Amino acid sequence: MTAPFSTLSDFRAQLQGLPRVDAAAEAAARDRNGQLTKPPGALGRLEDLAIWYAGWRGNARPALERPQVIVFAGNHGVTARGVSAFPAEVTVQMVANFRAGGAAINQLSKAFGAEMSVHELDLDRPTADFSVGPAMSEAEVVAALATGWAAVNPEADLLVVGEMGIGNTTAAAAIACALFGGQPGEWTGRGTGVDDHGLSIKTQVVAEGLAANPDRDPLEVLRCLGGREIAAMAGAIACAHARRIPVILDGFICSAAAATLALSAEGAIDHCVAGHASAEAAHRALLSKLGKQPLLELGLRLGEGSGAALAIGVLKGAIACHSGMATFAEAGVSDS
Amino acid sequence: MTAPFSTLSDFRAQLQGLPRVDAAAEAAARDRNGQLTKPPGALGRLEDLAIWYAGWRGNARPALERPQVIVFAGNHGVTARGVSAFPAEVTVQMVANFRAGGAAINQLSKAFGAEMSVHELDLDRPTADFSVGPAMSEAEVVAALATGWAAVNPEADLLVVGEMGIGNTTAAAAIACALFGGQPGEWTGRGTGVDDHGLSIKTQVVAEGLAANPDRDPLEVLRCLGGREIAAMAGAIACAHARRIPVILDGFICSAAAATLALSAEGAIDHCVAGHASAEAAHRALLSKLGKQPLLELGLRLGEGSGAALAIGVLKGAIACHSGMATFAEAGVSDS
Repeated sequence: MTAPFSTLSDFRAQLQGLPRVDAAAEAAARDRNGQLTKPPGALGRLEDLAIWYAGWRGNARPALERPQVIVFAGNHGVTARGVSAFPAEVTVQMVANFRAGGAAINQLSKAFGAEMSVHELDLDRPTADFSVGPAMSEAEVVAALATGWAAVNPEADLLVVGEMGIGNTTAAAAIACALFGGQPGEWTGRGTGVDDHGLSIKTQVVAEGLAANPDRDPLEVLRCLGGREIAAMAGAIACAHARRIPVILDGFICSAAAATLALSAEGAIDHCVAGHASAEAAHRALLSKLGKQPLLELGLRLGEGSGAALAIGVLKGAIACHSGMATFAEAGVSDS
Repeated sequence: MTAPFSTLSDFRAQLQGLPRVDAAAEAAARDRNGQLTKPPGALGRLEDLAIWYAGWRGNARPALERPQVIVFAGNHGVTARGVSAFPAEVTVQMVANFRAGGAAINQLSKAFGAEMSVHELDLDRPTADFSVGPAMSEAEVVAALATGWAAVNPEADLLVVGEMGIGNTTAAAAIACALFGGQPGEWTGRGTGVDDHGLSIKTQVVAEGLAANPDRDPLEVLRCLGGREIAAMAGAIACAHARRIPVILDGFICSAAAATLALSAEGAIDHCVAGHASAEAAHRALLSKLGKQPLLELGLRLGEGSGAALAIGVLKGAIACHSGMATFAEAGVSDS
C-alpha cells in the first residue's frame, strides 16, 4: 500500500496516531488461557506470547497463517572508512543470493512457511559518509521509510524485517549511542567479524558521526546516522503497527530501527517482540533499553532477519497451543 | 521393533554396545558449514546443531523430515502420599485428551510436522510407593524399557519423548538425587504447582525413598525410584541411539530418564540435545550434570514433551540453513 506520508513530519504524525492493542480481545484470550488443559502458567512465555498476539490481532483465538519476511538492502558511504570485514560489493552479491534462494533467510522463511521478499534501496547510490555529515537528506530518508511501509502485505498476520548492508552495524551503533547515550565503544561491536584494528576504526567513526550530527531527535538520528535499509525497516514496522500486524524484531540493526520509532511515540513498538539476542555485543543492552526480553539466545549474528525468522517457530507453537488446546471442561479433565 | 533385551543386564549390555557418531560425516558437515554464504560462526548454535545432527545421521547434508513424538503415561504409587497438586486420575484423563487431540503436545506436534503417539503403561496398576521399597520389580522395569524401545519408528529422523504421570516430578527428583548426590531439597520442586506444605511432604518422600532404596547403580535407581513412563522414555532414547536417530530431551523428568542411561555407559546420550530448560527448579542443575546446554529457556514446565517439541523448530531451522544454503562459490559472493 502507498505510504500516507511525504515528509518526516507527516511520518511523525502517523506514529502518534497508531492504534493501541485491543484490550477486550486480550482479556478474552487471557480468560481462555486460564481454562486450557494444563497447570496455570505451565506453558511459560508461550502463554504471554499468545495473549499478546491475540490482543494485536483483535481475536481471542487467533491463527498464525501468513507470516511475511521482508529483507531490505542498502549501501553505506561509511564503508569507505574500513568499518567492515567484508567489501561493500557483498551487499549486491547477497541480494542476488537472496533472489536465487541461497541465503539463510531463504531457508528459514521456507521452513516456517513465510512469504519472503527482497527490496534493494538504491544500492548504486550509497548513503553519504555520516562521519562528516548527514547520511541522508529528508527526501532520501522519507523515500526509504515509504519503501518499507509499502512493502508490508496488508494480508500478512506476522512480520519479520531483516536487512543486508555492509557497514550497517556501524550505523546501528551510532543510532543506539545517539538515542541512549553512553560511550561509542559501548555500542560498537565486531559485526560480521572485524579484528581489533577494525573495531577501533569503527568506534572512532561512530564518535565522529555523533559529533558531526548533533541533532538527537529520533527521526533526525535515523536520517543522519542510519541507512536506507534501516529506515525501510522502521517504515515497515510502523506500517505493521497501523495494520495491527505483530512484528518479531531481529538483531542489533533491526532493533536500532525500532528504537527510532519507540523514542518518537509512546507505544510505537508495543506490537513487537524481540526474536532473539544476537551475539553482537550491544544488542542485549539495546533490547533492555527497549524493554524487550528476547525469545531465543542462540548466538546468531547474521542479520537478514534470520533470528526473528527462527522465532516464528516459537510464536507458531504458542498460538497453536492457545487456539488448539481443549479446555478442562471440553476434555473432562479435573482442574485441581 | 521388538526390544533386544529381556533382563536389566541385557539392557545394560545394549547400552555398552551403542554406536558412536559418524566422524567422517561430521567432519564433512563441518567443512560444508565453513563454505556457506555467511560470516564464519554467524549462525551461532545453529551451526553446531546441524553438524551434530549430520554426524548422527551419517550424512553431511541431511534432511529433517520425519520427527516423531512419543508420549508415555504411567501412574505412581507415591501419589498416595500427597506429592502432587493434581489427583492421580488426571493421568488417565490426560491420556484421553492426548487421544482426542486436545493437549499442548498435540498442537506442537502438528505445528512442527511430527508424527505423535501415546503409550499408556498399566495405568490401572500404579508403581509401588517408592518411599517404602522399590517402585518396580525387574520384570516391570524391563517391560517398560521394552515398551519404550518398541515405540520408536525406525524410519523417524528425530525423536522427542514426553511423559504424563501425576507424581512423576517426585520420582525424577529421587532419581536425580540418587545419581548425583546432594540433598533431596535441592532436587525437589513444585511440579504442576504444589504449595509449601506439599513441597515439604514431597521432599520428605524423596528422602524416605532414597533411604528405602540404597542401591545407586543407575539402572537400579531407575527400577527402584522411577516409574513406568520414565523407564519407557529411557528405553526409547536408547533405541534411538541404536538407530542413529537424534533425540531432543524435554524437561526434568525426561532428563532424569536420560541420566540413568548417561551414567550406565559412556556416550549413551551423545545423540541427545537439551530442548529447553524448564521452570522446574532442579532441571537446570540436572542438565549441567549431563553437560547439556538448553536450546530454549521460555519458562515451560508442562512436560508431555512440549519443550522438546517446540525445539524441533530450532533444529529444523538449523538443518534447513545447513543443507539448503548456497556456498560462496555457488553464489559468487566474496568471502572476505
